[in-house]
Amino acid sequence: MENDGRRRVVIENLNPEVDGGRFPIKRVIGEKLVVTADIFADGHDAISARLLYRAPKDKEWRDAPMAFVENDRWRGKFVVEEIGIYHYTVEAWIDHFRTWQRDLKKRCDVGQDLKVDLWTGAEYIEKASGKASKEDQNKLLMFSKMIKGAKGVKEMVSAALSEELTELMDTYLDKTFSVLYEKELAVVVDRERALFSTWYELFPRSFSPDPGRHGTFKDCEGLLPEIGRMGFDILYLPPIHPIGRTNRKGKNNVLGNNPDDVGSLWAIGSKEGGHKAIHPQLGTIEDFERLIMKAKDHRIEVAMDLAFQCSPDHPYVKEHPEWFRWRPDGTVQFAENPPKKYEDIIPLNFETENWKELWEELKSIVLFWIEKGIRIFRVDNPHTKPFSFWEWLIKEIKKDYPNVIFLSEAFTRPKVMSRLAKLGFTQSYTYFTWRNTKRELIEYLTELTRAKVREYLRPNFWPNTPDILPEHLQYGGRPAFMIRLVLAATLSSNYGIYGPPFELCVNEALPGREEYLNSEKYEIKNWDRENPGSLEDFIARVNRIRKENLALQTTWNLRFYEADNEALLFFGKTTEDLSNMIMVVVNLDPFHIQSGWVRVPIHEMGIDPNQPYLVHDLLSDDKYIWQGEKNYVELNPQILPANIFRVRKKLKREMDFDYFM
Amino acid sequence: MENDGRRRVVIENLNPEVDGGRFPIKRVIGEKLVVTADIFADGHDAISARLLYRAPKDKEWRDAPMAFVENDRWRGKFVVEEIGIYHYTVEAWIDHFRTWQRDLKKRCDVGQDLKVDLWTGAEYIEKASGKASKEDQNKLLMFSKMIKGAKGVKEMVSAALSEELTELMDTYLDKTFSVLYEKELAVVVDRERALFSTWYELFPRSFSPDPGRHGTFKDCEGLLPEIGRMGFDILYLPPIHPIGRTNRKGKNNVLGNNPDDVGSLWAIGSKEGGHKAIHPQLGTIEDFERLIMKAKDHRIEVAMDLAFQCSPDHPYVKEHPEWFRWRPDGTVQFAENPPKKYEDIIPLNFETENWKELWEELKSIVLFWIEKGIRIFRVDNPHTKPFSFWEWLIKEIKKDYPNVIFLSEAFTRPKVMSRLAKLGFTQSYTYFTWRNTKRELIEYLTELTRAKVREYLRPNFWPNTPDILPEHLQYGGRPAFMIRLVLAATLSSNYGIYGPPFELCVNEALPGREEYLNSEKYEIKNWDRENPGSLEDFIARVNRIRKENLALQTTWNLRFYEADNEALLFFGKTTEDLSNMIMVVVNLDPFHIQSGWVRVPIHEMGIDPNQPYLVHDLLSDDKYIWQGEKNYVELNPQILPANIFRVRKKLKREMDFDYFM
Repeated sequence: MENDGRRRVVIENLNPEVDGGRFPIKRVIGEKLVVTADIFADGHDAISARLLYRAPKDKEWRDAPMAFVENDRWRGKFVVEEIGIYHYTVEAWIDHFRTWQRDLKKRCDVGQDLKVDLWTGAEYIEKASGKASKEDQNKLLMFSKMIKGAKGVKEMVSAALSEELTELMDTYLDKTFSVLYEKELAVVVDRERALFSTWYELFPRSFSPDPGRHGTFKDCEGLLPEIGRMGFDILYLPPIHPIGRTNRKGKNNVLGNNPDDVGSLWAIGSKEGGHKAIHPQLGTIEDFERLIMKAKDHRIEVAMDLAFQCSPDHPYVKEHPEWFRWRPDGTVQFAENPPKKYEDIIPLNFETENWKELWEELKSIVLFWIEKGIRIFRVDNPHTKPFSFWEWLIKEIKKDYPNVIFLSEAFTRPKVMSRLAKLGFTQSYTYFTWRNTKRELIEYLTELTRAKVREYLRPNFWPNTPDILPEHLQYGGRPAFMIRLVLAATLSSNYGIYGPPFELCVNEALPGREEYLNSEKYEIKNWDRENPGSLEDFIARVNRIRKENLALQTTWNLRFYEADNEALLFFGKTTEDLSNMIMVVVNLDPFHIQSGWVRVPIHEMGIDPNQPYLVHDLLSDDKYIWQGEKNYVELNPQILPANIFRVRKKLKREMDFDYFM
Repeated sequence: MENDGRRRVVIENLNPEVDGGRFPIKRVIGEKLVVTADIFADGHDAISARLLYRAPKDKEWRDAPMAFVENDRWRGKFVVEEIGIYHYTVEAWIDHFRTWQRDLKKRCDVGQDLKVDLWTGAEYIEKASGKASKEDQNKLLMFSKMIKGAKGVKEMVSAALSEELTELMDTYLDKTFSVLYEKELAVVVDRERALFSTWYELFPRSFSPDPGRHGTFKDCEGLLPEIGRMGFDILYLPPIHPIGRTNRKGKNNVLGNNPDDVGSLWAIGSKEGGHKAIHPQLGTIEDFERLIMKAKDHRIEVAMDLAFQCSPDHPYVKEHPEWFRWRPDGTVQFAENPPKKYEDIIPLNFETENWKELWEELKSIVLFWIEKGIRIFRVDNPHTKPFSFWEWLIKEIKKDYPNVIFLSEAFTRPKVMSRLAKLGFTQSYTYFTWRNTKRELIEYLTELTRAKVREYLRPNFWPNTPDILPEHLQYGGRPAFMIRLVLAATLSSNYGIYGPPFELCVNEALPGREEYLNSEKYEIKNWDRENPGSLEDFIARVNRIRKENLALQTTWNLRFYEADNEALLFFGKTTEDLSNMIMVVVNLDPFHIQSGWVRVPIHEMGIDPNQPYLVHDLLSDDKYIWQGEKNYVELNPQILPANIFRVRKKLKREMDFDYFM
């Protein structure tokens, strides 16, 4: 009986809420947060409810109205406008005055005697007048007088139900027994790029203009105009730190002890330094800072890799032997997944007694690069370090730098990926890389965009990575690369490619594997970027379409539509106000021309079934006049395996045929 | 960093768990509680987990093993054996020793050098030996010695992986960094009757042998043998308290002021007393106690009504005017749902300042009748009193009387019904009363038995009540009554009827309403219980089948099977060990013979598709030999609208044809 038993309203099943409020949800600036909840009380009394929310710096709640939807479900919404952590909850109360108004109307409709009921209402009004401003007090008392003593019942009832009175009473609500939802929930608000980003990954060491010389940050500066022209806004560099010498890997991951081997970028640390140092052959810290600055001129942000592991030559191994595992014979424990061994890498031991120092040191690495200007980190294999470490680290960093973005590279089991997203990662790699058929794509995208996971996991789609050359790209030729690019770029508002192998359609793999043959991970490459078969222009066009069409700048509006051919995937994205409507048709078959009838959701798009409308293929620049739901498409993968249609409704004025033709 | 960052295991998505642990789940004695959870850690280490649980009087956890299922899901179970509240949670830890064993095997399989690895394992064993009993210590040290120094690698590995060592190490587990699921969850364990009960509702005042005289508790004693013969184990009496005089209701709910009117039982309270008094015409408290005792001789428990509302003549109105609402003209506020008025009832005001006194008084009513021997309460309209009141009341009562059963009579909106079940009601009325078609029944029963609601809402199916004569019964004649009885009694392990109108197939309603014409609620009836058309024998048979077949004594094992006729509903229930297998076919059409092919799930039942099996219709006593999945049924509603088959598999010995014929 501790609580006041007179608080009769129940608020339950609030949505969105992740694991009972254990984790925050995510939004970016400008996104809406729609909150629904089951709200009800015993009996027949009317209920009122409002959504309470606090921006990062707010001390007091702001509020937004909640409206009844159906079946005891209520709904309210607000827009997040600042980076940081918002909080939200719901308040509801029995609204005796509205109950009285509602009942009065019903009684009046059947002609009951209303005298005493009118007096009851007047009492509510008089009570409210006690808290009112002088001006409102007078108004309220006037209403109360009218309700008790106007000439006719009709006048009394109409005063009682008047809009003016209702508004006045709303100002001086009686919330004596109002109920707060038992939890305050959090929403982490990120900058827009967390939801709309276009990543380009490259290995700087391969970009020297002199074949044979190791590429440098300075060389990379020269690439920026082209990366910008292709429409990428994030340049992601794999680790840039000194590479270990012990067990350095040779071409194709072979342990060869060849003095010319450049080694794997992920074998971090040598006598030249560790995670806070730059590989000397790439340049200096100042060169790196300059690259970051220059990139900004091209509206490109540099992202770097956080790979928390060491080469045997990393300074930590001597300075902090307690951070590693040691075997009974006094040797250090290398990374392994028995019987597989990773000879050039040793993992950190997160079960060390000095775990607090270790955590702080890793945090200091992130802060070090933040000070150099980095705000985006791609995190290597986060699923091999403790979850609680990441939750702590990301919270610590975002406390002072809420605009930092962390991309989780966890190609692992679904629940592990989901947990990493819940605990704070801003974006996540996904299984898109291996989803090719119509059914696979629809199922997986429906799960990502319609299930609860959408509240906290922002997908980032990669058709390839230095670690993965998927089978589809190995066999499908240039059309397969175009197909996968269009899918990644239009299904997901966050996507990236590993280039130049992607735009050059490199498709040679180790036999029976999804690994690149002669992978850039183990050697310096010399890419033929002038190759006429390069997809650079195609990629530039697709990315321009993304930039110019708001509907493609979010993933949450994706809807699949019907197409009567299993090789044709048909889907769309529209802005909420329908001012931008995109429909995409992709021929998933890289070998054959495919055609079929697609069903356009004209009703949802507000298109008159009796009027033609224009679909403008932004890829080919072709325009078609369609009418009604069913329309024909045909796609030749050797020319263009996809249409990205912008839909334009009939002009309000006389149909403008000039425009159409 | 407050917690130890070395606790690397994650336990999430534990099931069953209601509203993040806010509410307990429910079980009855002897039921199993299967607990599943997602359990995983970073990296590749092996995990071990166990289910922890505490019986009502336990101070320490007991534990049951949990096993990996798939996709990071683990599963464990225990059986609840005592009435009261159990608690449960999950513990998991990184199992370094098992990780080592697993990896050793993999390394051995590919022929790696194992020397140092064997030493690593020996260290684990030596560490464990430090906590072991003298005897086990010797064994462990012997193993460690063998593993470090046996003659051959083969011998060393086989010692390392031996069952004996594994068991020893399980005894001295290293759970330094074990993780407990963050919540302790509760399960309310009720007695068996909470899940398997057969209710009979009657109005005692109609059972005088002298027409014209008001029936008494003594008269009811004479009914017990017949109620027992019909197989009912709960006799539920609507309110037995003094009935108010003011605005007493006449026949068919008319306000007539006829001095002969007996009034509604729910207009509780007069100068003779209130909720702790007996209506003088029924007898005395002692008579009531004797009825309770006599019923026990017939294995019948008396249930009474908790209707927390008052007639205007209830003593509370004068003694506690502060428990009611008063209108501006000084009159008391009657019950109403505008524009509907209930002239003979006034509600309690749960928003009174003296709500604590009111709550305590209502609790004292329940305790008063518990002292008289009542352990089952049917609660009238709980949804018109605050949820927090019920949660408190039921908890308070069950603290001292955990065997009390509360049935929630809330025919209202789904979320309200669900909340009442969550907060503690033992059983709940349902929408079954209005679910008639095959699709409706399958949808509704699937929701009740497969969705989360099954963890806390135990359905109680009523084909009729004094308030509801459903349309189906009004028009379907005697077959409709039989259909609805079989459905109620076999779909749900808890069900009840309002008799004798049910067994007498009374079907006259107020025009266009689902209310009985000349309802017993407002007058004394004189039932023709000797009518040859009575369903008494049929009901007795159905209830005997329920008693003799364990599979029908739970609701949670219900499965629907295929039947190729929309009028035929085909479903089954089996015990987990398949020792009792029941299949029910119901012709939902009360007018026509219906026939069709049904598909028996022989694989689930462990029946060989090549062997015949016996289906024994326990209703008609007919036996059929069936084979394979598809079999033919035909049901004439004028004879028997249903089959309740008991399935008997082929005998292990030579097929016994005598038995079949």
